[in-house]
This record gives sequence, C-alpha cells and structure tokens, in this order.
Amino acid sequence: MPNAKFSVHAESENPTKVKIKSGKFTMIVDEPANLGGTDDGASPVEYVLAALAGCLNVVGNMVAKEMGFEIRSLSFDVEGEMNPAGFMGKAKDVRPGYQEIVAKVNVDSDADEETLNKWLEVIESRCPVSDNLSNATPLKIRLK
Amino acid sequence: MPNAKFSVHAESENPTKVKIKSGKFTMIVDEPANLGGTDDGASPVEYVLAALAGCLNVVGNMVAKEMGFEIRSLSFDVEGEMNPAGFMGKAKDVRPGYQEIVAKVNVDSDADEETLNKWLEVIESRCPVSDNLSNATPLKIRLK
Repeated sequence: MPNAKFSVHAESENPTKVKIKSGKFTMIVDEPANLGGTDDGASPVEYVLAALAGCLNVVGNMVAKEMGFEIRSLSFDVEGEMNPAGFMGKAKDVRPGYQEIVAKVNVDSDADEETLNKWLEVIESRCPVSDNLSNATPLKIRLK
Repeated sequence: MPNAKFSVHAESENPTKVKIKSGKFTMIVDEPANLGGTDDGASPVEYVLAALAGCLNVVGNMVAKEMGFEIRSLSFDVEGEMNPAGFMGKAKDVRPGYQEIVAKVNVDSDADEETLNKWLEVIESRCPVSDNLSNATPLKIRLK
C-alpha cells in the first residue's frame, strides 16, 4: 500500500496566532489573553487533544464495525497537564509538553464491558494520532 | 510553578465527524469523502500538523524576542507521510501514524543563518507539541 501524504500551510498573523490552510479548510490557532494571546482560536496544545479525539472517533467506529457491535452514541473527554516552566525555559528538568494525556471514552453500545475493553486496546494500537503521541516520531524542523 | 491543565470535550456526530468544544471554541474534525467521511472539517492527522505549526509560531516568536532579533514575517509548511495499512489493520509491521514529520520554517528577520539555526534548536527543545510528538507521551484511554 503506498504512503499517504498530509500537509498544512500556516501563516503567522501575530506572535501567538496562525491561520492554517489544510485543503479547503481554515484553522485558527491562538493563545488566550491571559497567556499574551489574541484569543481568536484554541491553543496548539488543545489542537493536540482535538486531533486525538477525532482519531479515536474514526478508528473507534471502524473497529466496532469490524468487531460486529453497534455504537449508539459516543463522546470523549480528553485532558492533559503540563508544566509551563518547560516551554518558558525556566526549568531544564521539566518536559515542555503534556506529562500524560487521558482520554475518557463515553460509549453507549450493545457490547459488554469485556468487549469494550478489547475494543479500546485495538483502537489504541491502530489510531495514528495515539501512535504519534505515545511513541517517538522523528521530527525535522528546518529553514526553508 | 504549578501544572496547567487543558481539556476538550468531543461529541461524535457520525463515524468520521466529531464536534469538539475547547472553552469557547468549536472545532470540527472529519475525514474527506474519499476516505468515507462527511468532509466537514480537516482530518485528525491534519490537526496534528496544525497543532505543531501553531506551537512553532508561539515558541518561535517568544525565543526570537529572548534572543533579541526581529521577525518580519513567518510561515510554516508542515507535512508528514503515513501508510494507511497500519490503521486499517492490514499490516502489523507498519506503524499507523506519521513515519516522520517535517516542518519547513520560512522566516524573514534581521538575524543571520547561524542565529536562525540556533533559534530552531531552542524552539524544538521548548515547544510542547514537538516534545509530545518527538518523545513518548504516556497515554491512557479508558471507559468513562
């Protein structure tokens, strides 16, 4: 199977805000006013949680279909904590990103709890976003 | 410095689409029609790239200020490749997520190239999103 390529283009509008084009869609990433931002969009680290929730939905529905049970409703609460000292450069021994991410899955279905726990395991092993977060992903940042 | 907590709530609207609430902001994550989606928003893996671009902008501007140079304009092209066989469960030896993520930084500034390369190094070491992608992040996915 050939690789699929994804890309976005982001223009900085001010020190906290970018306008992002991804195909026909526009996304605004910003910071809240209390962090010095212009508060025109969710923050970068909230976009990470949104990406994970979106991925869990897609893979969750796909895997439920494979496993042969019906999902009547599905929602997610995703949260994470980080210590700002890391990205502010005030502590070298603190990682700048989330220390842990927790996704709580609220599902109404015709499956029993054992089946649902198996379902979660399969989702976690196949969701691209959970893979990129829970395992190291090579990242190259360079001048254009 | 105390930890900062971030969270989102996501409601599944159909097998590919979620509506996400993050404070006062709403984000729609979906899949394109050619992947069986309803094409109402960027895809989960594009949200990952958007998160990274947004983070590079915030940290890039912060670090430039610390280093004492001026950014006149800044944009990013962020891309990644993955093999769909992974998340489709058709190949066990293929990771489901991005195999690599490349961020090209287009900056117009009054700094020389050596300074800009140092700038990129500092950004990469302090950006929360690049940390969570390039290093393993503990992830807990559980039933609510």
